[in-house]
Amino acid sequence: GALSQSSTQAVNGVSHRGKVLTLDSMNPNVKRVEYAVRGPIVQRAVQIEKELKEGVKKPFTEVIKANIGDAHAMGQKPITFLRQVLALCSYPELLEDNMFPEDAKKRARRILESCGGHSIGAYSASQGIECIRQDVARYIERRDGGIPSSPDNIYLSTGASDAIVTMLKLLVCGEGRSRTGVMISIPQYPLYSAALADLGAVQISYYLDEDKCWSLDVAELRRALNAARQHCNPRVLCIINPGNPTGQVQSRQCIEDVIRFAKEEHLFLMADEVYQDNVYAEGCKFHSFKKVLFEMGPEYSSTVEMASFHSTSKCYMGECGFRGGYMEVINMDPEVKAQLTKLVSVRLCPPVPGQALLDLVVNPPQPDEPSYTTFMKERTAVLAALAEKARLTEETFNTVPGITCNPVQGAMYTFPRITLPQKAIDKAKEEGQVPDMYYCMRLLEEEGICLVPGSGFGQREGTFHFRMTILPPTEKLKVVLQKIREFHLRFTQEFS
Amino acid sequence: GALSQSSTQAVNGVSHRGKVLTLDSMNPNVKRVEYAVRGPIVQRAVQIEKELKEGVKKPFTEVIKANIGDAHAMGQKPITFLRQVLALCSYPELLEDNMFPEDAKKRARRILESCGGHSIGAYSASQGIECIRQDVARYIERRDGGIPSSPDNIYLSTGASDAIVTMLKLLVCGEGRSRTGVMISIPQYPLYSAALADLGAVQISYYLDEDKCWSLDVAELRRALNAARQHCNPRVLCIINPGNPTGQVQSRQCIEDVIRFAKEEHLFLMADEVYQDNVYAEGCKFHSFKKVLFEMGPEYSSTVEMASFHSTSKCYMGECGFRGGYMEVINMDPEVKAQLTKLVSVRLCPPVPGQALLDLVVNPPQPDEPSYTTFMKERTAVLAALAEKARLTEETFNTVPGITCNPVQGAMYTFPRITLPQKAIDKAKEEGQVPDMYYCMRLLEEEGICLVPGSGFGQREGTFHFRMTILPPTEKLKVVLQKIREFHLRFTQEFS
Repeated sequence: GALSQSSTQAVNGVSHRGKVLTLDSMNPNVKRVEYAVRGPIVQRAVQIEKELKEGVKKPFTEVIKANIGDAHAMGQKPITFLRQVLALCSYPELLEDNMFPEDAKKRARRILESCGGHSIGAYSASQGIECIRQDVARYIERRDGGIPSSPDNIYLSTGASDAIVTMLKLLVCGEGRSRTGVMISIPQYPLYSAALADLGAVQISYYLDEDKCWSLDVAELRRALNAARQHCNPRVLCIINPGNPTGQVQSRQCIEDVIRFAKEEHLFLMADEVYQDNVYAEGCKFHSFKKVLFEMGPEYSSTVEMASFHSTSKCYMGECGFRGGYMEVINMDPEVKAQLTKLVSVRLCPPVPGQALLDLVVNPPQPDEPSYTTFMKERTAVLAALAEKARLTEETFNTVPGITCNPVQGAMYTFPRITLPQKAIDKAKEEGQVPDMYYCMRLLEEEGICLVPGSGFGQREGTFHFRMTILPPTEKLKVVLQKIREFHLRFTQEFS
Repeated sequence: GALSQSSTQAVNGVSHRGKVLTLDSMNPNVKRVEYAVRGPIVQRAVQIEKELKEGVKKPFTEVIKANIGDAHAMGQKPITFLRQVLALCSYPELLEDNMFPEDAKKRARRILESCGGHSIGAYSASQGIECIRQDVARYIERRDGGIPSSPDNIYLSTGASDAIVTMLKLLVCGEGRSRTGVMISIPQYPLYSAALADLGAVQISYYLDEDKCWSLDVAELRRALNAARQHCNPRVLCIINPGNPTGQVQSRQCIEDVIRFAKEEHLFLMADEVYQDNVYAEGCKFHSFKKVLFEMGPEYSSTVEMASFHSTSKCYMGECGFRGGYMEVINMDPEVKAQLTKLVSVRLCPPVPGQALLDLVVNPPQPDEPSYTTFMKERTAVLAALAEKARLTEETFNTVPGITCNPVQGAMYTFPRITLPQKAIDKAKEEGQVPDMYYCMRLLEEEGICLVPGSGFGQREGTFHFRMTILPPTEKLKVVLQKIREFHLRFTQEFS
């Protein structure tokens, strides 16, 4: 292959050789990676923004990017307490100043004391700063009603993505029919399919039930698993709860069923729980996989292997840029844990400002502390606005003929189904695009709204969707919803 | 393999199954990863620190960790200007305050204006914030005497490690004899061997010449390459200049020879230049690979594919915890560049505080700005102290019988050769340790000094070394050198 080709070229003369690294000679797994959330539609959106700046006339004056869960970019203000502590950690001379509340200073001092040379510019332990891992463990214990958590099982990470990819990397082995298979939901968050392509693992798709509010059915898990057993070695089950891009919140019963299934089928569970504070719908509640696992008794809690992921990027703080996060591993073989610790040490450590931020998230101001009132006011305001926008989004979309939308029970997205006329589907094929990409590109060009086509997340054959974040400020969201409504009616009419 | 084994166990009864993820069933590439800089000796050092805290009596009162280039942990103070701007970016309310100089505020405003929602909590573009990439390009142009640099070729990263691993990942393909081979120096920085193990690429070792101050000889490159062609497809040549762990600074002539070799042999060049400001020795100068490449004329500058790496963790700033860095790619195929951009988008973006920090490094205070004097004073003091410690280290070690030490021309490390008595080598074998690990462990237990054995970096068969950073404050470094001296004499005597 590459070897003989290179030699042949050498005979023909050095100066006529092509590049060392080309599309043909690069890592083929990387070529298979797709990541729609920042794919071609977003690149076009950035281009349009530049055109607008250069004075090119468009039917709109700004591009609204509802493609990614990026709260601050959509105007959400940072939580004061978090940023005060970060400023103190960055420039400790401010500790001498009296402009910051005492609890912010106390947190900053504690973080700095656990840093090498009392500086967030020092590397931390590769697993993360010890006192922060202790705070994470205590946070999990509070969240799960006292079920014990050990700092030794906590790994801080560069956002949740980093920890998810690391965990998948540990789990992938074998060749051909023995290659590791990983079960992921469809629709899914495309980090998963991208990581599996990169690792050369086998993706096993199980479908969420759109008709039942994107719920997860164990019968469907079993169908997918049995089919996959013919061609790979299924070892991992990934769950996103609350759901991305689908916004559903799983019931306790469903989680119990999933855990039972994982145990029966000898699967490692990966629970992506980064939206654990983002639950809006009446009657819905976040149940952590760990809590349910432990409530199922020792037969489960001492055997089922699991990793749970959390992040500073979502919930009420939305601090995506800091790339903070953690994973908790449960029932992991100690020898494997040593390998995990070794593996993360190669990258030295997660960014320390992100670790500091995570510490504040898991150890927020307490009722007797000076920052408590403001902190709670800000936190509550963000979550209440999100709940309101979740309701508004569902309601508005469901008034549009040809759009049907499940309730946004949690997370930050809606994934409505759109009915596309056959002529539009044909037109898209003519243009060499999948139909919902064509739809979203037209929406972008005509209304300046950037969404992600459902095909980027996976959907049942013949159905079409898009993902939209509910993050724009309420008044702007209303405009966005109205514009999508008008576009959809116009688009449908054009092709009918 | 794993598939049939799992089925067999299922027949024997579900409850007796072992774990899903064990040492036998995990990713075998991960098992092959080694990273000595944070390996067993550092784990033991952390343990000893805990024992000291618990009151266990030791022949010393503190552990001095000279195993890793972590300047702040060794007491180096952050550069004021950098931290002022970071505090302003973290908590923009401080912009209203008059405690910060105007140039710091100006930098912070510019960074914030290029962030989504004017917040460093927003995701940035995956390639990095555009105005920071512009600043990086201008910095490179200034450094290289005006040779053009384009922001489109700049990728910001999570420390240099991230970019190095990403670049290697793009380059690895093929199976068996066609598998990509990557040339790395011996001794090397173990990120390289770790990444190659993880990616299943073939490591091609070329030896630096210890007798010639760790210089690089093209004849040795050719020897290594020709040997490797028998069993893999060599495509990449990695260079670290200034050297880690060896501290040499390459001459312009050497760099020219390496570039000519890369062109002749059709190799992609990876130039790890993270110590570019750390040059101490009289007559030594940092020459960037890019500058030399362009000075060699269009035959080279328009063909040789290259990536160069830089970081915020080293030089005078030593801000390891922020995980900032960049890579510049040169002559990269545009289609491959699109694949690279896609690949980095899966992880969303490098940490934004690290990006902001990088911006200040490439765009520091100018002579007409209020922070200039303090900034230059701090920067010069750090670099002057490092130069003094480099000299002190070499001089002291070379007075110890059985230790020989090349000059520390640059970077932050010394990699002295130690002569070990045969009886010590035998004793180490008895204990199941490689001899220099045994030596370093004894040094740690007896003197509380944590170094990394040469075997963690690679060395010629039968020779032994250790890597020590020159980062401890001068007075403490003197103590460390003295203690190593005494230990070495004692150790040698014990086994002679």
